[in-house]
Amino acid sequence: MLRDDVKLISVDDHLLEHPRVWEERLPAGLREAGPRVVEADRGPWAGHEVWLMEDKAYPTLKHYAIAGQDREGAGGPIRFSEMLPGCYDPAARIKDMDLDGVWAQLCFPTFARFAGTRFLECDDKELAAACVRAYNDFVVEEWCGYEPGRQIPLVILPLWNVEDAVEELRRCAVNGAKAVSFPENPAPLGLPSWHSGQWDPVLAAAAEAGLPLCMHFGTSGRTTATSDDCPDSVRYTLLACNSMGLAADLLLSGVFVKFPELRVALSEGGIGWMPYFLERIDYTWEGHRTMEPQTDFGVRPSEMFVDHIFGCFIEDESGLEARHRIGVSQIMWESDYPHADSAWPHSREELARRMRDVPDD
Amino acid sequence: MLRDDVKLISVDDHLLEHPRVWEERLPAGLREAGPRVVEADRGPWAGHEVWLMEDKAYPTLKHYAIAGQDREGAGGPIRFSEMLPGCYDPAARIKDMDLDGVWAQLCFPTFARFAGTRFLECDDKELAAACVRAYNDFVVEEWCGYEPGRQIPLVILPLWNVEDAVEELRRCAVNGAKAVSFPENPAPLGLPSWHSGQWDPVLAAAAEAGLPLCMHFGTSGRTTATSDDCPDSVRYTLLACNSMGLAADLLLSGVFVKFPELRVALSEGGIGWMPYFLERIDYTWEGHRTMEPQTDFGVRPSEMFVDHIFGCFIEDESGLEARHRIGVSQIMWESDYPHADSAWPHSREELARRMRDVPDD
Repeated sequence: MLRDDVKLISVDDHLLEHPRVWEERLPAGLREAGPRVVEADRGPWAGHEVWLMEDKAYPTLKHYAIAGQDREGAGGPIRFSEMLPGCYDPAARIKDMDLDGVWAQLCFPTFARFAGTRFLECDDKELAAACVRAYNDFVVEEWCGYEPGRQIPLVILPLWNVEDAVEELRRCAVNGAKAVSFPENPAPLGLPSWHSGQWDPVLAAAAEAGLPLCMHFGTSGRTTATSDDCPDSVRYTLLACNSMGLAADLLLSGVFVKFPELRVALSEGGIGWMPYFLERIDYTWEGHRTMEPQTDFGVRPSEMFVDHIFGCFIEDESGLEARHRIGVSQIMWESDYPHADSAWPHSREELARRMRDVPDD
Repeated sequence: MLRDDVKLISVDDHLLEHPRVWEERLPAGLREAGPRVVEADRGPWAGHEVWLMEDKAYPTLKHYAIAGQDREGAGGPIRFSEMLPGCYDPAARIKDMDLDGVWAQLCFPTFARFAGTRFLECDDKELAAACVRAYNDFVVEEWCGYEPGRQIPLVILPLWNVEDAVEELRRCAVNGAKAVSFPENPAPLGLPSWHSGQWDPVLAAAAEAGLPLCMHFGTSGRTTATSDDCPDSVRYTLLACNSMGLAADLLLSGVFVKFPELRVALSEGGIGWMPYFLERIDYTWEGHRTMEPQTDFGVRPSEMFVDHIFGCFIEDESGLEARHRIGVSQIMWESDYPHADSAWPHSREELARRMRDVPDD
């Protein structure tokens, strides 16, 4: 049952940075090279609106702003003037949330990429760091400041330098950030893996500040493909394999033993795979712990999962049915506005329908 | 409940080819280069017993014959004289099955690798083809002929040539083979993918002969690793990702529409992930079918799953609990003798304990 007085909080939505985010906030000397929206007059995107950064053009693809649109050409570019204003305008977003019956959202960036990995591509790392700070100030002050409580401030980090990442996390925590977006797997991005121990300072800082790390599907830049010629639907069917890999990495690298206050959200990862996964990881751990003592923290992975790893769902009948195996308090809901998985403007009705057999308590 | 009069059939076990399998069966001119067991006197395996094929040495690792052994040194070599005779001797195997309460087994090869991919490594493809035929004759006549009905003949194919594979499949079917071992994903082996359409003649021949294809975890030669430095326990925790990928490949490439009689077993793949997977693949297919018409056969993937894809389990509480979502008739059991997952000689007791809440019907 979904009672009418329950305020819905969605933990996976997306904002599109409006065209002037960086122009308004970067130091004067960096504005020219920083991200801005222009009309492309040459190259593969000629005739389209693109983001320009360090002279490289990046279109905004329609599937990132598909709410209220037909699906045709979803893989091609879209202009700001064609989008629902709720995609980029905080006031319009609140109206769209009201229509959808959603009280609060946690939004991931789009141009910056969901975990800020766009700025790994910058040649000028001073510019990149300034872009991260500008995004974070925008999201805290402008996006979430419009109607306090309705948007949860989620910030990004300068991933190319651990010390700078720690400093930015602390700065944002002071400014009011409530969560941090981080790649589900740093290794495919050319960064140290979860098993390197090199992210410990960031994890320590997040735990100390009480900020959960939100790790969105796909932020590693890698999908699970079976072959080079497999259809995209194979990759998207296998989405949970990324989240399973992330959960295995975290539980077998001991981060929750080192940092007991650390919490991680598997954003967009689904929940139905969790009961099987928890059994499987315990079984594997039990069989390998003497051979791989680096994974043996004297406590079963499934016990470390509790209170540390949180999942979310849109549609997930088998996961809801098995909710007591997962842990009811570890399951969250997402609306995924303005992406294709979103039921907007019917998210609340859809959720109510899915929850009709789930008792209030 | 597991009634005492129920005959247990295990669908995933392993045989170790005895040292003379190929020497006894290869044509005289190929015997010297073919697989035989020798004492290595040089190289990394000096002082150990190894298989020699085309002058390359391959040790038998202890974890492939771990039944009745302690776990120490499981990653190192083992001699035939150190193994339980049930590993390689058909008469001793039947006694070990009786001890274990198992009526029949389906055994994958070891030196040849579970799907016969060892012979892809042969420089001489005439030798390779002869090795495949010799293995198949051995398994049908010698391994399964010892006590008919207690061992189910599972054969391998010459994977480097589709026409030869079809011919060998038909030859074996006539000789009494009941199942075919095939790689879970040919692409990582340098072979055409499931989406290439190039395996259609093999699938057609298997469907026509009524032989299921058994696709064992790991036969693609690829495990799901999150990074180069992740522990092995991460890879083994993620075992189901291979089987999920295989199921997605098969269901989205339309093989069960083209060959309605085709049946596939996901050997060692577990079952607990299936309820989530079936929901997920339907959801993804629904969203992508117009963009990817090559995946649209007018029928939901979860409907094609029924009667075509079969899973098996050893321990899988969440899978047993969700058995009606999977389909009771699509769930099989495995004992995995003589590998580390096996509960031998207590397989039947363990299974009875796990089935105590599952009613007879």
